[in-house]
Amino acid sequence: MIVVMKQGATRAQVANVTARIEQLGCRAHLSEGEERTIIGVIGNGRPIDREPIERMDGVERTVPILRPFKLASRDFHPQDTLVSINGLAIGGRQLIVMAGPCAVESREQLLEAARAVKSGGGHVLRGGAFKPRTSPYSFQGLGEEGLRLLAAVREETGLPIVTEVMEPQMVPLVTTYADILQIGARNMQNYALLHAVGEAQRPVLLKRGMMSTIEELLMAAEYILSHGNDRVILCERGIRTFEQYTRNTLDISAVPLLKQLSHLPVVVDPSHGTGKWELVEPVSRAAVAAGADGLLIEVHPHPEQALSDGAQSLKPTRFADMMRGLQPIAEAVGRTL
Amino acid sequence: MIVVMKQGATRAQVANVTARIEQLGCRAHLSEGEERTIIGVIGNGRPIDREPIERMDGVERTVPILRPFKLASRDFHPQDTLVSINGLAIGGRQLIVMAGPCAVESREQLLEAARAVKSGGGHVLRGGAFKPRTSPYSFQGLGEEGLRLLAAVREETGLPIVTEVMEPQMVPLVTTYADILQIGARNMQNYALLHAVGEAQRPVLLKRGMMSTIEELLMAAEYILSHGNDRVILCERGIRTFEQYTRNTLDISAVPLLKQLSHLPVVVDPSHGTGKWELVEPVSRAAVAAGADGLLIEVHPHPEQALSDGAQSLKPTRFADMMRGLQPIAEAVGRTL
Amino acid sequence: MIVVMKQGATRAQVANVTARIEQLGCRAHLSEGEERTIIGVIGNGRPIDREPIERMDGVERTVPILRPFKLASRDFHPQDTLVSINGLAIGGRQLIVMAGPCAVESREQLLEAARAVKSGGGHVLRGGAFKPRTSPYSFQGLGEEGLRLLAAVREETGLPIVTEVMEPQMVPLVTTYADILQIGARNMQNYALLHAVGEAQRPVLLKRGMMSTIEELLMAAEYILSHGNDRVILCERGIRTFEQYTRNTLDISAVPLLKQLSHLPVVVDPSHGTGKWELVEPVSRAAVAAGADGLLIEVHPHPEQALSDGAQSLKPTRFADMMRGLQPIAEAVGRTL
Amino acid sequence: MIVVMKQGATRAQVANVTARIEQLGCRAHLSEGEERTIIGVIGNGRPIDREPIERMDGVERTVPILRPFKLASRDFHPQDTLVSINGLAIGGRQLIVMAGPCAVESREQLLEAARAVKSGGGHVLRGGAFKPRTSPYSFQGLGEEGLRLLAAVREETGLPIVTEVMEPQMVPLVTTYADILQIGARNMQNYALLHAVGEAQRPVLLKRGMMSTIEELLMAAEYILSHGNDRVILCERGIRTFEQYTRNTLDISAVPLLKQLSHLPVVVDPSHGTGKWELVEPVSRAAVAAGADGLLIEVHPHPEQALSDGAQSLKPTRFADMMRGLQPIAEAVGRTL
Repeated sequence: MIVVMKQGATRAQVANVTARIEQLGCRAHLSEGEERTIIGVIGNGRPIDREPIERMDGVERTVPILRPFKLASRDFHPQDTLVSINGLAIGGRQLIVMAGPCAVESREQLLEAARAVKSGGGHVLRGGAFKPRTSPYSFQGLGEEGLRLLAAVREETGLPIVTEVMEPQMVPLVTTYADILQIGARNMQNYALLHAVGEAQRPVLLKRGMMSTIEELLMAAEYILSHGNDRVILCERGIRTFEQYTRNTLDISAVPLLKQLSHLPVVVDPSHGTGKWELVEPVSRAAVAAGADGLLIEVHPHPEQALSDGAQSLKPTRFADMMRGLQPIAEAVGRTL
Repeated sequence: MIVVMKQGATRAQVANVTARIEQLGCRAHLSEGEERTIIGVIGNGRPIDREPIERMDGVERTVPILRPFKLASRDFHPQDTLVSINGLAIGGRQLIVMAGPCAVESREQLLEAARAVKSGGGHVLRGGAFKPRTSPYSFQGLGEEGLRLLAAVREETGLPIVTEVMEPQMVPLVTTYADILQIGARNMQNYALLHAVGEAQRPVLLKRGMMSTIEELLMAAEYILSHGNDRVILCERGIRTFEQYTRNTLDISAVPLLKQLSHLPVVVDPSHGTGKWELVEPVSRAAVAAGADGLLIEVHPHPEQALSDGAQSLKPTRFADMMRGLQPIAEAVGRTL
Repeated sequence: MIVVMKQGATRAQVANVTARIEQLGCRAHLSEGEERTIIGVIGNGRPIDREPIERMDGVERTVPILRPFKLASRDFHPQDTLVSINGLAIGGRQLIVMAGPCAVESREQLLEAARAVKSGGGHVLRGGAFKPRTSPYSFQGLGEEGLRLLAAVREETGLPIVTEVMEPQMVPLVTTYADILQIGARNMQNYALLHAVGEAQRPVLLKRGMMSTIEELLMAAEYILSHGNDRVILCERGIRTFEQYTRNTLDISAVPLLKQLSHLPVVVDPSHGTGKWELVEPVSRAAVAAGADGLLIEVHPHPEQALSDGAQSLKPTRFADMMRGLQPIAEAVGRTL
Repeated sequence: MIVVMKQGATRAQVANVTARIEQLGCRAHLSEGEERTIIGVIGNGRPIDREPIERMDGVERTVPILRPFKLASRDFHPQDTLVSINGLAIGGRQLIVMAGPCAVESREQLLEAARAVKSGGGHVLRGGAFKPRTSPYSFQGLGEEGLRLLAAVREETGLPIVTEVMEPQMVPLVTTYADILQIGARNMQNYALLHAVGEAQRPVLLKRGMMSTIEELLMAAEYILSHGNDRVILCERGIRTFEQYTRNTLDISAVPLLKQLSHLPVVVDPSHGTGKWELVEPVSRAAVAAGADGLLIEVHPHPEQALSDGAQSLKPTRFADMMRGLQPIAEAVGRTL
């Protein structure tokens, strides 16, 4: 941390800040410039809280130097983390495609979607049993019945399952059914939930909040890692901007940046990232070209009848086409599909 | 809802959409323009899901006409809602100031803060027992011990208490201690939690998410109202923008707009809204001038020792000064303080 | 400036950076922490370009310490700047209200508007002769004929005139007619234009770009000041965010922040800042309460016939009401109107 | 356009709006719902101004139905536009790479960069003679001397030239030197400049403003097209968001969306889009995979000595590597490089 003193800060104010820094077990390093005095804080290994110092008399502001995440950072863990599920390794040479309907609606719908995912070349079945919806009047998901349908379809198709968990006390229940626990964008900073999945025995797919910075996404991952679960998969799914033609603005740079800052696998959700099925295929290609380790795609046998997010779901034939189109892109960046 | 057909949509496609609308119990009203056919959907009182229709062949997009919230809307409930706590009415002529430390740290700190709030003219004591923090390594609050301290200080000062609840299963516990349940910005779309406080017997202070629209805030209020709790207080606390000199950008227009769209009381949190104590006073004045029903202010006896958000907390003397300065503004807009 | 070296940067890399800093006539100050080496750069009074150093081997990033503006900063010029026009002083105790139609449409319209402004208590007449419009098919303004009408109406009412200039080569022409030159939000970073008004003999009203930071606004002011024109009035007029119920999000905190960072007067434009006439009055009150030195208000005798921005224009009677309502707020903050 | 009347609008108000619509030469089409009356406006081919109607008594809001751009739209011009320069066609099967330094600094620097661009496989040389810079104290470009150097290096290498023009009155001068005129992001809504290049005899590279929507970018193109110049190349270069790890957030979805909405070629600038050279290569791959017609890349022989934007410039060897890596991606999407 660097402490920038105000122009005209007194010697006594500088001395007080220095004393406080030393009291925290750190060393203070003074630089006196023409206009400002700057104090470098040399830490003792533990993170320092900037706020109390920012409030001291004569202090203009503080500047953080180290990134606030540690367990999630590549500095701390240089090798790529591979997350294994049913013999699949997410984060390795093979791209992993998780696909399926936004919401589980019925056994027929789910089975038809799962078969489309499998025959198209997908690896994991996605589907929501509990649905966070902006309106209390929209379909909220089938609940535990949805989880049972997911397990039954896994039985029939062999596809592992990723599904969202929305409340800390539901983590044990969802864990008995799911292969991967999904944390939705709206819950990325639901700390009680992050704590609960941090103690679960399942990999976690952590979606970036629509209002969250890359640093905050990595801090949310840090929460999970710090509670003992080291199988975290990061997911870029678009952020909120002023642009209105798309539902969100997919942050493609986040893919190489997350791979550089962190050792965790990174997947991309172009369905939520764009909100339009016509954009899912080109943006999926872009994600693979940018270095993503996998994709999360909405596939629905009959999107026009979907109870949620139909506008961004692919029909089975279009999903199969998309997978074929991804093949040469994957090869071009040294991956397999 | 309006359905805009694609340029060159066929008669058969238009007929299919019309049939679907009628199947949903609505009437379809065709307008054939030079370049587009447009279908007006005349509802049957229930909200219609736009997505399935958006996915039909020949449809370009749909346009909502009615606001998606109802219980929260002034159309539905023209009179102002007054939320009563201990003889105070929030939303009436008198402005209500809720103040106190960001986090409860100790009995001494809380008591000192509460006395400052009371002697300065504040009406409700705020203080967090459970603190949502971006970093797992930061102070997370005292937990139930914090709730007990809040109750003890209420006993001593007579100030009612507002405090945050972060998990659905904690709602019963927090309800036994608090006079107002606070939903934090990061939990504005935590639907399980909205559901839980919707069934609680306490007023709810609902903070706007930092990347949430005014419509989404009102939809979150709708969740709570639709579960039976009609004592909701809306809180503008700043949104996230590209501006970096302030922690958030306080959306002052939201105050008159929320008062116009909804019957619920609106309070403003200039401490989180700006992140800088020097800005709290001018922005508080602005909030009152714009028509806010109250304020939420961070006050700490020793901000430079605060365990969280010290940089935006007022010292007791400054709080008292601020309250004095608000007096003539309140009068200028026909309110009392 | 602070230079943060990468973890594991070599001694040779640190030495190279140090040498480069000294070559630029600055002093380098080393702090070796546990994880990072940090180099403080102590300047020689001239601003240093961070980029070349950021590109050197072993450098992770650089952190600026000083604000990049100087002439616009209060550190450099502690007293408030007063901008005088026709005996009025903008930036002093008296609030200045500039009002009038978005676009000059005809002599009758302008004169009717000017009389309403004057009788309502406004001080300056605003009106656009050249209109920047998003669509090439919208009304683009009357051009020089509009300037002549403005001058004629000034003759008749005595109100000085503020009007927008959009091109560097038009500055001499507009200067012959206008009392204050307005730089519109879309031109805040039109450097050729800033240069041209920097050499003009007229005060400049500089509107914040809709996606510009406070720092960028002050840098744009610095451009004008650095070309010799020290009569700059800053204008907050709302920034672009994800919120869709208002045209822009008025950044109320910018008012006290600009007053703190700079010595220049600050006015607020609630008409563009909100885009809705119903919000103009409460947001004007808020602006005055927050410490603005004046307001820029759209007034049109017949808003429903306005050729541009009618939705945010006040009728004359409403303008007069608004001015009456501002009186006690102005007094409450020690100002006159 | 659709007019949504307020709840409780009177018959007289509805009749007034209808009369006004017919007075504008349009037909009005009434739909009376349970809660609202809605009036469809069926146009006469000319765009209708929504604002005057929005201000009429009883009107809640208006909703546009048609996109506001016409000449730029694919509905109007279904075939792809090819922009030819020196035998190159931008917008066809072959990808076009424009590369070079941010600013022209000297003959040696430019020639070295141009040779690197040519030997790496680039098609057009980019370089700024006039540089828009946030600070008045930064290097502002060599001016006409820079244009002469560009022309000399074109002579020597055969590479056509793209360079920025910042003022309407400079268009004739820049046209005598440049093969493509660039409109920078800060000038995307500088209408006087759009008008001037709309009358120039050169293709125009139009960069999206950092605060501009896709619709506004297409409206800016419409300005140029409506003044007679139909050789416009659109450029996505990142938008401003709350994310701070990158300079801008490159909107990858804009590429397929612009190709769908418009017939104009689309290129991507990953150098400004990310601000970090390490991200240029993966984001370039993404752009090609998403369907871009070309790229705009900063290449500098010695980025650490660059006078502007060094942090986002590639060294010659890295540029050559990047071009090799793009080859298989281009093939995968049916393009040549």
